[in-house]
Amino acid sequence: MTAVRLHRLKRLFVGIPLPTAQSRHERLGKSTALAVFASDALSSVAYATEEILLVLVLAGSAALSYSLPIAVGIALLIAIVVTSYRQTIRAYPQGGGAYVVTKDNLGVFPGLVAGAALLIDYVLTVAVSVAAGIVAVTSALPALYRYRVWFCLAAVTAIVLANLRGLRESGRLFAAPTYLFIASLFGLVGYGGLAVFLDMIPEAPYAPHPPGLEGVGLFLLLRAFGHGCTALTGVEAVSDGVPAFKPPESHNARIVITWLAAVLITLFLGITFLASDLGITPRPDESVVSQLARRVFGGGLVYYEIQAVTMLILLLAANTSFADFPRLSFFLARDRFIPRQFGSQGDRLVFSNGILILGGVAGLLLVIFRGDPHALIPLYAVGVFISFTLSQASMVRRWLRLRGEGWRWRASLNGFGALVTGVVMLTIAVTKFMDGAWIVVVLIPALVTIFLVIHGHYEEVAGQLSLEGFSPPPPMTHSVLVLVGDLHRGVIRAVQYAESLSPSAKAVYVETDPERTFRLEEKWGKWGMGTPLIVLSSPYRSVLGPLLDYIDHLQERSGENHIVTIILPEFIPARWWQHLLHNQTALLIKGALLFRRNVVVTDVPYHLKS
Amino acid sequence: MTAVRLHRLKRLFVGIPLPTAQSRHERLGKSTALAVFASDALSSVAYATEEILLVLVLAGSAALSYSLPIAVGIALLIAIVVTSYRQTIRAYPQGGGAYVVTKDNLGVFPGLVAGAALLIDYVLTVAVSVAAGIVAVTSALPALYRYRVWFCLAAVTAIVLANLRGLRESGRLFAAPTYLFIASLFGLVGYGGLAVFLDMIPEAPYAPHPPGLEGVGLFLLLRAFGHGCTALTGVEAVSDGVPAFKPPESHNARIVITWLAAVLITLFLGITFLASDLGITPRPDESVVSQLARRVFGGGLVYYEIQAVTMLILLLAANTSFADFPRLSFFLARDRFIPRQFGSQGDRLVFSNGILILGGVAGLLLVIFRGDPHALIPLYAVGVFISFTLSQASMVRRWLRLRGEGWRWRASLNGFGALVTGVVMLTIAVTKFMDGAWIVVVLIPALVTIFLVIHGHYEEVAGQLSLEGFSPPPPMTHSVLVLVGDLHRGVIRAVQYAESLSPSAKAVYVETDPERTFRLEEKWGKWGMGTPLIVLSSPYRSVLGPLLDYIDHLQERSGENHIVTIILPEFIPARWWQHLLHNQTALLIKGALLFRRNVVVTDVPYHLKS
Repeated sequence: MTAVRLHRLKRLFVGIPLPTAQSRHERLGKSTALAVFASDALSSVAYATEEILLVLVLAGSAALSYSLPIAVGIALLIAIVVTSYRQTIRAYPQGGGAYVVTKDNLGVFPGLVAGAALLIDYVLTVAVSVAAGIVAVTSALPALYRYRVWFCLAAVTAIVLANLRGLRESGRLFAAPTYLFIASLFGLVGYGGLAVFLDMIPEAPYAPHPPGLEGVGLFLLLRAFGHGCTALTGVEAVSDGVPAFKPPESHNARIVITWLAAVLITLFLGITFLASDLGITPRPDESVVSQLARRVFGGGLVYYEIQAVTMLILLLAANTSFADFPRLSFFLARDRFIPRQFGSQGDRLVFSNGILILGGVAGLLLVIFRGDPHALIPLYAVGVFISFTLSQASMVRRWLRLRGEGWRWRASLNGFGALVTGVVMLTIAVTKFMDGAWIVVVLIPALVTIFLVIHGHYEEVAGQLSLEGFSPPPPMTHSVLVLVGDLHRGVIRAVQYAESLSPSAKAVYVETDPERTFRLEEKWGKWGMGTPLIVLSSPYRSVLGPLLDYIDHLQERSGENHIVTIILPEFIPARWWQHLLHNQTALLIKGALLFRRNVVVTDVPYHLKS
Repeated sequence: MTAVRLHRLKRLFVGIPLPTAQSRHERLGKSTALAVFASDALSSVAYATEEILLVLVLAGSAALSYSLPIAVGIALLIAIVVTSYRQTIRAYPQGGGAYVVTKDNLGVFPGLVAGAALLIDYVLTVAVSVAAGIVAVTSALPALYRYRVWFCLAAVTAIVLANLRGLRESGRLFAAPTYLFIASLFGLVGYGGLAVFLDMIPEAPYAPHPPGLEGVGLFLLLRAFGHGCTALTGVEAVSDGVPAFKPPESHNARIVITWLAAVLITLFLGITFLASDLGITPRPDESVVSQLARRVFGGGLVYYEIQAVTMLILLLAANTSFADFPRLSFFLARDRFIPRQFGSQGDRLVFSNGILILGGVAGLLLVIFRGDPHALIPLYAVGVFISFTLSQASMVRRWLRLRGEGWRWRASLNGFGALVTGVVMLTIAVTKFMDGAWIVVVLIPALVTIFLVIHGHYEEVAGQLSLEGFSPPPPMTHSVLVLVGDLHRGVIRAVQYAESLSPSAKAVYVETDPERTFRLEEKWGKWGMGTPLIVLSSPYRSVLGPLLDYIDHLQERSGENHIVTIILPEFIPARWWQHLLHNQTALLIKGALLFRRNVVVTDVPYHLKS
């Protein structure tokens, strides 16, 4: 009954199961794929500019004008990384991203480092994006600021449920807001730029910094650059998800990643330059994009629309991880580096276990960091750049090995990408180390160690279970014991069952009170059906001790290949609460016998009515 | 392994088990019994006077002088109740208190009301006594006041552990502080009275109230009386615990309850009169007894000694319930009104389940009421007086029925006791109703209903299991299926086991991927030992659905008396965390088959090394 109810509950939330053959139809067209995979990268324009300004403002408002060259540098970096990834997509139409590519070309250990880095970053993508999405809301409606953690948790829960229902529906649901976001932000940047050009809005650019780095320092500039690199997070998502595209998968994926890069660079530069023209300074209570939109459109309907779609795209960004994290988990589980439960596909062809864990850990982070994206961002991006670097280095190795057409320039291209992202990774790790990047630096080797321990266990088990060189032992002998505490209909049923298994079955009773034994023996004479009753005395009232001693005694007499079956009569009440009203002796006995060799414990249920 | 570790942990906290024969030696001598059973009643002098003053002060300080006649009335009430209980002890040497006595004489329903009232009051005794004990500490050391809830919880935990270790040790441990408390409070009252008499301490008596009830009101006086009746809580504990005394049990118990009454009345009146002489007014931050001791002895060592023993006696009072609550639970469980787990005696002849529940609920109350005894006291005492009244009314009924020697005066005595306590009970229920007594008034019928529902279930089960008019069905037929997902050493062992149970055993495989089926069939040909392999196809990748269908199909073909045994090969990892690394399919299947008739599920374990 309970099992059936749970089942129904699950159906209600996750829909009915789909047959295997339907798997192929759950594929994404290019425009839907852009909505699903590109939202992570695009959404970062909602906070990347602000992250740069937040660092620069530490050196005074005169330093803010450095945001322009930094943004141009980041735009260039995006172009390099995406070009590099287009080659990866072509070479790996089966997808799998940095983990698969690195493991294939550089070996297991670097592959696991990439895998660990990516798992961490997927979790942070959810946490950062949801937190930033709720900031978009509280920028527009400051009264809700104090409830931000609750809103964050509600958003994570909603995304988890949507994903448990399956990929296709998610894609459809999310296509409209992505395009609305792209259109709205192009509107903001375009109209804003035009308005500034036509002097409809007064320009108030940042004060130009005197030439040189006086008062700013190279370290601060690098830190600002590192913070701005959050703009790149998510551009690799497409390469992980190639098999989810409609055929020709890799062709379509390459088109989508190129669109993505073009839109991302345009919006990121547009926002950074517009913020500079209007002299926007970061504020704790309102995001930079919100300030921009308010200045360009006033506080009217268009402003609220921009905040709303910003929130939506950020929730979509969180959703990207819900496609990628379970997919990566599946590969890691298939290779036996994480528990195999992550390798099961669940009812609706989605990777339910991964979805639940991802949502849970991200929710925890949101609670710990009080839903503040700026507190979370220092942890972010290190992992992404580790995986960028490893993935591109792998491609170099691959070109050198395969030497296909144009291998020289392709290797150079990927090599340049690896070099640049490697330098950026080190920059980020060093400049953000004290702000929280150290957590990731500690966590990655820890995760890799766990992967290796788990793998070792699975290898060990496979070896122990292997049939290689195994010769089946001779047929078993066995004895059957029914453990009785009383004699009633349930016991009679269990005794009958025991008799059907073995003609030499015996009943065993542990005596705690001689008076009760006497009454039982009387009843047994009348109803025992000829089955012998063995009485074991128990000076300490423990049922377990004498039983274990008796089993020892039986096993000593018989050979290695003798199995003792202990049959427990158990009545099953009709309602769940009634279970609480009965002694859980059976459970205790099962627990105690679980680790005994050559003992099998069997419940014989007797079902009660009402 | 895990089971063994838990076992060791339990030994560490609750000691080694005792054989049944030792039961008789765990008896209490008179002086130890006084320490164990009387502490509840005696400890109430630590707060009873204060409760009276707290009500009277609401009508202004002139009303405080009414505390003297009220205290005399309560002293009289104690004498009446104890005299009445001496008869109960004589008539019921087997103990059991109000529940047993009432059920015997007035019937099941009133018995259950008494039982419910007592259960509630035992819980409140723990909560109130611990809270008041911590007040004794914080009166002396006000800096600890803010941690009072933590101190309360620590005290409850300590008492629970002491009781899990067994009754005798508790008695020994607690005898010294009880006598120290009695001596100390006699010292306080005697020395204080002498000092006042010799004018060593300036007298500052309460202003006498003008004659009549102007400004006070009868209701307030009754309320003050009702609050003061907490002094009576616990006097009945002796009658519940008669079998714990050394023989002659009932004789010794009557001596102890008489001592108890004498000491209680003397100390209660002494403190109330001394408080009046010195004009003590209740204060939120310091108890009345603490104020008294400070005035009589100054703030020196003697003062701290009195606070310390006051705390100790109050913790002993809490301990009284830990002897009584599990004992009452045992009777209720024996009569099948509460879950039978409460009827088991545990390892050390103590009633572990009851002890744990009592500690848990009392701890919860302490958290909810923030460790404030004055907030808890309105809930207290209603239950005690319900049980007093029912218990004495039962004795009247008993004398009328048995008509033994002196039955007339004995019945009159108990009848007078019942009348007085009945009136007091109504007074308390009415005057404290809004302060919290309503909770108890609601809870008692709720508990009685639960008792009756549980009893109904046990009766129903007994009827369904009864052998009366039962004729054993013909011998069973059965079929044996091994559910396999792969073929390895563990599966081969399970197949061998199945073959030993039935020569017609079959293996069943649910196909989720035809390619894997092909590989399995190949392996099966080589290693399957001739056992047939049945492949069930599963379009939805669910293992459960096709298996259930197949069982249905088997059962339809066979008769009513056919049992299907499903054998699950299961490998048992050597370490607990390794369980997390394996699919829990077996658990799922067991859950789904638990409520199917005529199906038995058997795990065949294969133990892995390291």
